[in-house]
Amino acid sequence: MKKIAALLLIMLSLSIQAQNNFQEDSLALRKIYDLALLQGQSYAWLDHLSNKIGGRLSGSVSAQQAVDYTKAELEALGLDRVWLQPVMVPKWTRGNAEYAYVQTQGGPTNTVNILALGGSVATPETGLRANVIEVQGIEDIARYGKEQIQGKIVFFNRPMPADLIHTFSAYGACVDQRYSGAAEAAKFGASGVIVRSLSHKIDEHPHTGSMSYGDLPNEKRIPAAAISTKDAEYLSSMLKLNKDLDFYFKTSSRNYEDVESYNVIGEIKGSERPDEYIVVGGHLDSWDVGDGAHDDGAGVVQSMEVLRLMKEAGIKPKRTLRVVLFMNEENGLRGGNKYAEEAKKNNESHIFALESDAGGFTPRGFSIDARQSQFEKIQSWEPLFKPYLIHYFEKGGSGADISPLKNGDIVLAGLRPDSQRYFDYHHAATDTFEAVNKRELELGAATMASLIYLVDKYGFDNIQTEEPTLSN
Amino acid sequence: MKKIAALLLIMLSLSIQAQNNFQEDSLALRKIYDLALLQGQSYAWLDHLSNKIGGRLSGSVSAQQAVDYTKAELEALGLDRVWLQPVMVPKWTRGNAEYAYVQTQGGPTNTVNILALGGSVATPETGLRANVIEVQGIEDIARYGKEQIQGKIVFFNRPMPADLIHTFSAYGACVDQRYSGAAEAAKFGASGVIVRSLSHKIDEHPHTGSMSYGDLPNEKRIPAAAISTKDAEYLSSMLKLNKDLDFYFKTSSRNYEDVESYNVIGEIKGSERPDEYIVVGGHLDSWDVGDGAHDDGAGVVQSMEVLRLMKEAGIKPKRTLRVVLFMNEENGLRGGNKYAEEAKKNNESHIFALESDAGGFTPRGFSIDARQSQFEKIQSWEPLFKPYLIHYFEKGGSGADISPLKNGDIVLAGLRPDSQRYFDYHHAATDTFEAVNKRELELGAATMASLIYLVDKYGFDNIQTEEPTLSN
Repeated sequence: MKKIAALLLIMLSLSIQAQNNFQEDSLALRKIYDLALLQGQSYAWLDHLSNKIGGRLSGSVSAQQAVDYTKAELEALGLDRVWLQPVMVPKWTRGNAEYAYVQTQGGPTNTVNILALGGSVATPETGLRANVIEVQGIEDIARYGKEQIQGKIVFFNRPMPADLIHTFSAYGACVDQRYSGAAEAAKFGASGVIVRSLSHKIDEHPHTGSMSYGDLPNEKRIPAAAISTKDAEYLSSMLKLNKDLDFYFKTSSRNYEDVESYNVIGEIKGSERPDEYIVVGGHLDSWDVGDGAHDDGAGVVQSMEVLRLMKEAGIKPKRTLRVVLFMNEENGLRGGNKYAEEAKKNNESHIFALESDAGGFTPRGFSIDARQSQFEKIQSWEPLFKPYLIHYFEKGGSGADISPLKNGDIVLAGLRPDSQRYFDYHHAATDTFEAVNKRELELGAATMASLIYLVDKYGFDNIQTEEPTLSN
Repeated sequence: MKKIAALLLIMLSLSIQAQNNFQEDSLALRKIYDLALLQGQSYAWLDHLSNKIGGRLSGSVSAQQAVDYTKAELEALGLDRVWLQPVMVPKWTRGNAEYAYVQTQGGPTNTVNILALGGSVATPETGLRANVIEVQGIEDIARYGKEQIQGKIVFFNRPMPADLIHTFSAYGACVDQRYSGAAEAAKFGASGVIVRSLSHKIDEHPHTGSMSYGDLPNEKRIPAAAISTKDAEYLSSMLKLNKDLDFYFKTSSRNYEDVESYNVIGEIKGSERPDEYIVVGGHLDSWDVGDGAHDDGAGVVQSMEVLRLMKEAGIKPKRTLRVVLFMNEENGLRGGNKYAEEAKKNNESHIFALESDAGGFTPRGFSIDARQSQFEKIQSWEPLFKPYLIHYFEKGGSGADISPLKNGDIVLAGLRPDSQRYFDYHHAATDTFEAVNKRELELGAATMASLIYLVDKYGFDNIQTEEPTLSN
């Protein structure tokens, strides 16, 4: 009987502890959301990044301005340490505005909107004109074979499937055309490549993005550009009328030697476990068109805001909390690789990393890359997030920049905002400050800070720290 | 033993039935979403309503055009019956564009953007100029009393609280200033009323909306207008410098006798229970500024799409399914009242009504006004909606137009889209087609159709129809 009584007492005390934790955490989250919504800083930072600096392609002057600006802003927050981590990055420039047209048979030329793909070689100075052939994907290239591809401009026109609810899945179903289309087409003697923009929206704005020639030797590389969805539809409809159609385009992009750039890092030293690291970040570089407001200005300012919110809320993290603004996610991932490399070299034990790189839209939750027990621990916090309409806690990928940290032990997570409009703006001239809603951006920052707060408080090592048992 | 075996057999057969239902329903929902996203009609309808017709204030020519257009489109769907239900509606016109300025002390005048509130009387033809006093809400009026209010223009400036996650709650916390501010201020001798626009966004666009003078006699009625949030901030900051400031505004709005208009109704006759009615709807009227794209063009075209999707998916409803496009939600609710009145008169048994009137944004779920058992039945369908990221099933209000149907028995529900951006556009010139995203609109329509499908299949009378026991 005594044993049973003792057991009951322990159970009771654990249950009271869990209740207390839930209340304390509820109040902490409310404070975080209040600070983000009532006195948030992220929107003003994004205004500066978008409107005062603009597109921040790796190796550009504006990328360096973004490094300087965010470093100064992090320093103004009074963090324990702010520094730059040097990293060599690729440098590619677009050159003059692109020009392209469709030559209708015996009729007039119709100009269309294109953007050279990042990393693409230029067309000859007088441009490239050739017969165009439409394909629905890379697999079509081999099917058509050399006799139909040789000398032609290959037009990749498989649209993003509209029936997938997650737009990132629809993107994933088509991005190979942009990334590897030129390399594949070149193997069969194509003279150039035009890729339908990766967007659900039918409009006049082309969407650029990275591409790779793989191991193709320099002299075999062919120019590649994205065409707006509206013009892709137009070109396709013209080809239905007459297969013997010429396409002309002129680009003047150029690849340079690598140049030095930086990851920007800020840190709050942990009060109890300073040797355990938690990272929150986004990427500072963007494409050169538009202002990179959603991709990934939003992630940058939200990550900065996480540390500011912790300080403002008077939360002293047990573990060392770092904001990392990664350089060169778009065309190289050099910043992400460099950070992971240095962390390993310095034997830094990273327990958690969170990336925001899916736009500054209303947050829905998190995609989590973790072991089952770690995943369930995060899932158990869901009731705390319910008042903020955060409901999505699913296993899945995290973010490109933090993925090199993966080691089987660290928990990786990605903020998952509503994704329906993301690809309307992604890598296009329309990715501007105006496309970001202040409240949506701020809710994302508060949601990230809340998860960071919980991870820091409870960790993932079930033995050493207390588990919150949440119920509501 | 035989009894136990028989019981187990029954339980097994019920469980198999539930499994079968879940599979069948999953496939039905997938079909509905596919049809909405791949061959949706709602976006094209909204384009016409917004860009070919525009703002559709009750009693206006464009409201009548919207009646004619939607009736013709419903007829083209091949419904069993389409008709107009006459209803008398108020007629109010804005007249000439408003004009307003702040007279700084000994300095220049600064024009500000205002919109007369719907139902407001006009200023004198030469406008109204008076000393302005800022208040933070209706309760301030009595506090200041006649000596401080008399003859003045009262400036209601309580902003929508930013810390509330549901923006409709923030709206609810301030809308009394717009609706009753003039009536209250007039009682204390105010000469006019200016109300801060009900929007979180700080911009130059004023947001109109309905107001009422209550039982105030005609000669005591004073003009009322909304001022843009940006100008409200400006005016407030000027008042902080100098309390003795004049405000001038000129409006030429006018109230007319009621005129005849219509609810537009389309119907698919039920195959098994034709005398049980299910309603889905939105309101056809809108304010006169902007195009009423989110409010409530979106709800109109989504409701029409629900019936189209049912037909396209080959779903023959057991119960009679009606789309009702209500007239005059914005300034009278006459259409909603008329529909309920006629339903009662004709002894029509309505079991369910669903309204979409919260914008064409990404759907999150439903707010449900029902008895506990009915609510739990709807909640039990949540697993079917999970693939579509629909997670919000909460008790709460439904929609203004369907609320007159409430009788303690009918289940009422409102579609709940993401609400963060809704009040950026609500009742303002910015509520245009461009503000609506095609996929978000279509996801809303599919989500509504899915709920209608389930309600029609299972009903709420637990005895007569089978209950789906859902698990995944």
